[in-house]
This record gives sequence, structure tokens and C-alpha cells, in this order.
Amino acid sequence: MPVIAVDAMGGDRGPDEVVAGAVAARSDTLTPVLYGSAGIDAAGLELVETVGVIEMSDKPAEAVRAKPDSSLVAAVRAVAEGRADAVVSAGNTGAVLAAGLLELRRLPGVIRPAIAIPVPSERGPSVLLDAGANADARPEHLLQFATMGSVFAEEILGIENPEVRLLSIGEEPEKGNQLTLEAHELLAASDLNFAGNTEGRDLLSGAADVVVTDGFTGNVALKLLEGAIRSLLEALRAEIESTPRGKLGGLLIRPAARRLRDRLDPDTYGGAYLLGLRGLAVIAHGNSSQKAIANAVRLAARGVEHDVVERLAARLPSPAASRAPG
Amino acid sequence: MPVIAVDAMGGDRGPDEVVAGAVAARSDTLTPVLYGSAGIDAAGLELVETVGVIEMSDKPAEAVRAKPDSSLVAAVRAVAEGRADAVVSAGNTGAVLAAGLLELRRLPGVIRPAIAIPVPSERGPSVLLDAGANADARPEHLLQFATMGSVFAEEILGIENPEVRLLSIGEEPEKGNQLTLEAHELLAASDLNFAGNTEGRDLLSGAADVVVTDGFTGNVALKLLEGAIRSLLEALRAEIESTPRGKLGGLLIRPAARRLRDRLDPDTYGGAYLLGLRGLAVIAHGNSSQKAIANAVRLAARGVEHDVVERLAARLPSPAASRAPG
Repeated sequence: MPVIAVDAMGGDRGPDEVVAGAVAARSDTLTPVLYGSAGIDAAGLELVETVGVIEMSDKPAEAVRAKPDSSLVAAVRAVAEGRADAVVSAGNTGAVLAAGLLELRRLPGVIRPAIAIPVPSERGPSVLLDAGANADARPEHLLQFATMGSVFAEEILGIENPEVRLLSIGEEPEKGNQLTLEAHELLAASDLNFAGNTEGRDLLSGAADVVVTDGFTGNVALKLLEGAIRSLLEALRAEIESTPRGKLGGLLIRPAARRLRDRLDPDTYGGAYLLGLRGLAVIAHGNSSQKAIANAVRLAARGVEHDVVERLAARLPSPAASRAPG
Repeated sequence: MPVIAVDAMGGDRGPDEVVAGAVAARSDTLTPVLYGSAGIDAAGLELVETVGVIEMSDKPAEAVRAKPDSSLVAAVRAVAEGRADAVVSAGNTGAVLAAGLLELRRLPGVIRPAIAIPVPSERGPSVLLDAGANADARPEHLLQFATMGSVFAEEILGIENPEVRLLSIGEEPEKGNQLTLEAHELLAASDLNFAGNTEGRDLLSGAADVVVTDGFTGNVALKLLEGAIRSLLEALRAEIESTPRGKLGGLLIRPAARRLRDRLDPDTYGGAYLLGLRGLAVIAHGNSSQKAIANAVRLAARGVEHDVVERLAARLPSPAASRAPG
């Protein structure tokens, strides 16, 4: 039964919200263990007491070094030392990455870990990566992201022979920036199921099973999507409520609107995998609700059950064949 | 009265759609002149006959050189030679840029022209640039885009002392990729009304009056927004129509949904300015309807009336003070 280390101090809403999420996720098939400061209410879960908290505003690498016994670093270390099978944190994303690199280390052959996030498209879920682990990327990084995304799509989304596309500014291979032009060539020459470029407009309609991009573009795109969904639903509500006829209609479509919101709700997945490390880490949104935390813990357990880390290791190039770490 | 050269052969929907748009835009305050092949129906407008058509799939620079008498190049040249005050094309964007660089040339001091596109935010229109003129950019380009965007916001959107923000992956100055980190410093040291970084999530809610980014990120973001708006409205309709109650509600909210769609419709502006040349060019969406073309022609005329090109020239650094063209 997977043991999931949960960083109880991570997230904007405070430990009670995280603990409630962990409690909700506890089941016959997974055991959450909390890592947090003495005195927090563990609500019946096991609490490993930690010292210090990494703040959202802390500089990641510095904070991880300065606070080795903080909830975040201790939870990551628990995976490295075999006391947990995966870690979940809604804390400082950069610090989770830094702690992962320090405590878990990279899988052999991995140049850069990437954040893989499920996107709720019309055709069903797809995965976008990198969603922000690396602000700058090189073409060979994008090729690895594609490999890691394919393993994720197969193991977690259950898609056989997943189709990979490269996010760019035109479908033609010769459209893009320097990075995507070179990455396109690498992807086309790889043994992945690469189907070419995709444009931003197809992301929600289901561009591909795996959408590959650099962490800057991926992060901008995800936040844009998040903001667009919220803005559009709010704008529609304002328009509806501006007339009596609209108000009545609004009452009638409320269940439909709620179904749509739930389907698109980032809390439905709750988290993103940090892929490429010798252990599984799930990063939850800083503003995670308990529902989001619970789903992030379940996502972590699913990754453990499907041996995501081992399967990644098997699919990535052997260290001898790969380039030096960048 | 501004004379607007219209590339009648540009756009996916064929000359009849473009001509209908130009006819709709004709008024007491502007005169559209068509540039197109002999034999098209000019519907009473002046037609300057041109030879050859640049296709969407043509390589921009090659096509502009190989087809100097095509409708697109001839329409741009009309501005360079003073026979028109601005040009509108829904054709190959790269070719409009290439023709602009060749025929109109850059304003003194401009390193790279940029595509400035109005974004319909909750707070009112804002402008995003570069929306795709340059796939790769350097920090000093982004500084110029900010200056050009500010002139656009003042002159065309009527915003006094417009607020400029840099699109990045965190609001803190130290969050971003190499390009945005360096651009942030240049912007902070400039005399623009720079308010720091903005994240994708605030683009539709009204992040700033001017949102600056490189052409790759800007193009991905715009297409993503376009796709998200379409996908969301479609998904909501599907949810609504899945139950009788929803269907009735859907009928009642139809006017509200239509108002929202119209407000967000890219056709409302119809086009984007290509800024930084010694003449005004408006790029319309390849799939422009006649409504979009008409609005693009009006947008061009508005730019002429507001002396956008002259005002840009006055605000940009003098050639002696600026770096060599990149």
C-alpha cells in the first residue's frame, strides 16, 4: 500500500486545508503521512514533526539548503530514504524541484526534470509538459520531455501509443522559434509517435495526447487557460444577470454550467507530476483546496501503483548514450 | 480622407469576401482601393490590377521577391509611394512583414517591427505585442515593443499614460526566462509607465494597458485564447443541450451568450497593426469575414487619422542613439 508523504505546511490555505485533503484521500489502498510543525492538528493521521517552513516567496535553492528540516524538504527526503513512496506538496514549486534534485536526484540519463500537467481537453485528458520546471530549455530537453510525457500518457492516462505534438506558432515544421525548429527535427527523428506541431488554439479541443513545450511557454499557457476559463464564465454570468430573461435562463442552465466547471476544474487532477527524478513528486497548486490536495494524493498513489518512475527509467536513454547533464 | 489599399486576394475566403468588407467600410471619411487580379468583381470600388498572388503556404521573403507585382506587395508599395495612406491584408502574415520591410522600411531607430493586437479584457481593450512578427526576440526588442505599444494605447485606445507589463511566469522581477529577466531590467530603467510582470491568468481580466512579450509566446497565447473561447462556449452548449431543462435555459440565455461572443469576437477589431515601419500596415486574420475586413479597414483609417506612424517616430530613440539593426 503506497505511503504518500504530504507536506502539511505547503499551500496558501494553511495546514488545516492540507490535512483535510490528506484525510479525505486516506483509503484502503493508500496511507498519507503528514510532514509538518509540532502542534498542527493531524486529524488522526501520522505526523512526522519537522522544523521550519519554506515560504512561497523564498528563493528555492537557498531555502532548501537553509531549511533542510523543513516540512517540504523532509517530505521529499522521506521518498529518497524509502520511508515514503511519493511526496505531495502545494508549497513553493521551485523549492520542490530544488529539493527533488538534491534529495532524490535525477534518473540516469535525465538532463532536466519537467512538470507534467493533465489538461482537460474535449477528446479526454492530455498531458502538457514542461509546465514550468525550467524557464529556459534546449531542444534535447524537449525531446526528453516528450519521452517522459509519453510514459505518463501511457501509464496514467491509459493511452496506447500516445500521439506527441510540439507547441509552436504554425503547423508547418518550418514555423517556430529557434528552439522549436531544432526540437522538431529531434522529435521527427525519434521513435516517438510524433505528429508534428500544434498551435495554441487546439490545446483545449485535444491537440494531442502529449503536448511538449518549454517551461516558460507552458507556464504562460496554463495560467492563461486558467484565467480564460474563469474570466469567460464570470463574463457570461454578468451578461446573463443583466436581464430578467437571462436570470431565469441562468437558473435553468446552472447544473450544466456546474458540470462544465467541474470538468475544467484544475482541482479535478489536483496536481502535476515532477518527472525525471529517482522518486515520485506531485506538485499541487499553491491555492489548492482540500479536494485538490486529496486528488493530488490519489494521483501520487496512482503513479506509485503504475511504477511511473521505473518505467521512465526504462524508457530514457542509458547514461552512457546521453549527453552530459545541462 | 485616408485612402486604404486593400489586398483583395489575401485571406482564406477569397476576393468576394474581402471586397464586400471593403465596400462595407467605405464612408465619407475613408476610401478603400482594391489591389487584385483582373476580373475580380470590384463592386464599384477602384481596382488596381495586380499580377500574381502570394499564397498562405509561400515562404514569405522568397514570395515577396518572386512576386513583386502581386496584390499583397503592390498594396504595400502603394503606401511606400504615397498612393495610399495605409494597407490592409488578410494574406500571408510573414509576407506582409517581408513586403513592409522591403517596401516601407523600418522607422529610424526601430530594430524589429511588431504586431500589436487589441485584446478584449474585462477592464476594456488592452494591447498585446509582439503577436508574432518575430519568433525570437532579444531584450532590447521587447523594450521597443513596449514603447510602440504605449503609443498605440494612447493614440488608438485613448488611454493616457498607459500601464505596461511584461508577460512572464511570476509577478516577481526575478521570475522568468533569460529574455524576460533582462527585458524586465530594461523596462524598469525606461521612462515608460512600467508596472512589472504579469502572468497569463490576468490577460483577459485586464492585466495592463500594454502587455509585452516575444512573438512566439504572444502568438501561442493569442491562439490559445481564441481556441479557449471557442472550446468553452461549445462545451457549455453541449452541456446545456444534454437536458430538457438546460435546453430551455439555453434559449433564454441566448441573447446574453451572443453579447459575450460579440464582445470577445476577434472580428470586432478585425486586425492588428504592424508597427515600426515607415507606413501603416494592418494585418487581418487569414480567416477574416467581411465584417472583420471592414473593421480592419476602419482600424487602418483610424491609425492614419491619429498619425500613429509619425507619433511612433517621435517616441522612438533617434537612430544615432540606438543600436545597430538586428
